[in-house]
Amino acid sequence: MPGTDSHITQAEREALRAAITRALDAHRDSGRTGIAAAIVCDDEVIVTAENAVDQDIDPTRHAEMVALSKATAQLGRKDLAGCTLISTLQPCEMCLAAMRFAGIGRVIYAATQERVADKYFVFPGLGIRDFHAAGGRFTHVGGVMEEDVLHLYADGAE
Amino acid sequence: MPGTDSHITQAEREALRAAITRALDAHRDSGRTGIAAAIVCDDEVIVTAENAVDQDIDPTRHAEMVALSKATAQLGRKDLAGCTLISTLQPCEMCLAAMRFAGIGRVIYAATQERVADKYFVFPGLGIRDFHAAGGRFTHVGGVMEEDVLHLYADGAE
Repeated sequence: MPGTDSHITQAEREALRAAITRALDAHRDSGRTGIAAAIVCDDEVIVTAENAVDQDIDPTRHAEMVALSKATAQLGRKDLAGCTLISTLQPCEMCLAAMRFAGIGRVIYAATQERVADKYFVFPGLGIRDFHAAGGRFTHVGGVMEEDVLHLYADGAE
Repeated sequence: MPGTDSHITQAEREALRAAITRALDAHRDSGRTGIAAAIVCDDEVIVTAENAVDQDIDPTRHAEMVALSKATAQLGRKDLAGCTLISTLQPCEMCLAAMRFAGIGRVIYAATQERVADKYFVFPGLGIRDFHAAGGRFTHVGGVMEEDVLHLYADGAE
């Protein structure tokens, strides 16, 4: 496990809990996979978002990307330095890079790459520690409340 | 140089030439950096796009991302397998991953990471060959017509 619960704030924990509830609801109500993200700034949830790839027919619209786009539009600035990205699933390579372009240096997530289907990542030889080691300038805590969502992202799950 | 001109088709070359013209025009007419992308499928340019980060106040709207979103929306499908991504600047980590999520396995670009400002990449320890070696499943030809655009992306250029 990349980190432990003890490293996260109360606001971050609550945001992840809410994101997990949203993902589980989406899966139960509509049969969608259920991936949700949020952005927390100054102990407040600024935006929440859900994966929109199928609805928008747009492979770039992962939950984290939608959250980043909404947050910068809402705040009227491109830079989200000091904020935390929250996700029910470890951000893929695209979302992790987008997070850094938005100036975010902290990410908290539930399901970890090692325990989900391969399809959620496109450069399987690189893990989040590799991106960190490559000068990524972020901290990450993964595996938080992981058991609550793993069934959504297992190999063969729809 | 990651590749040579001899590996690209006539349609790809023309698409890159058009993208370079668009990038140079944008820079000259508006003072923007000027980054343009296109997607070529079956020897036809399906879409062209320009970086929209500042206009949209959205750090995810790189030229390649806008092109991918437009192409999938236009074709009504998430999968662009068999198409080629064209860009005036080597795709960053976000765009490269997005390209793979869209099923694209080929990218042609002008300016290369080694010769542009650091700000265009967020994991400086990883180059495009590392992503390829990490199971990226794509081919790439970079440095094509590079001299025409390098001044746009130099350190300190606006």
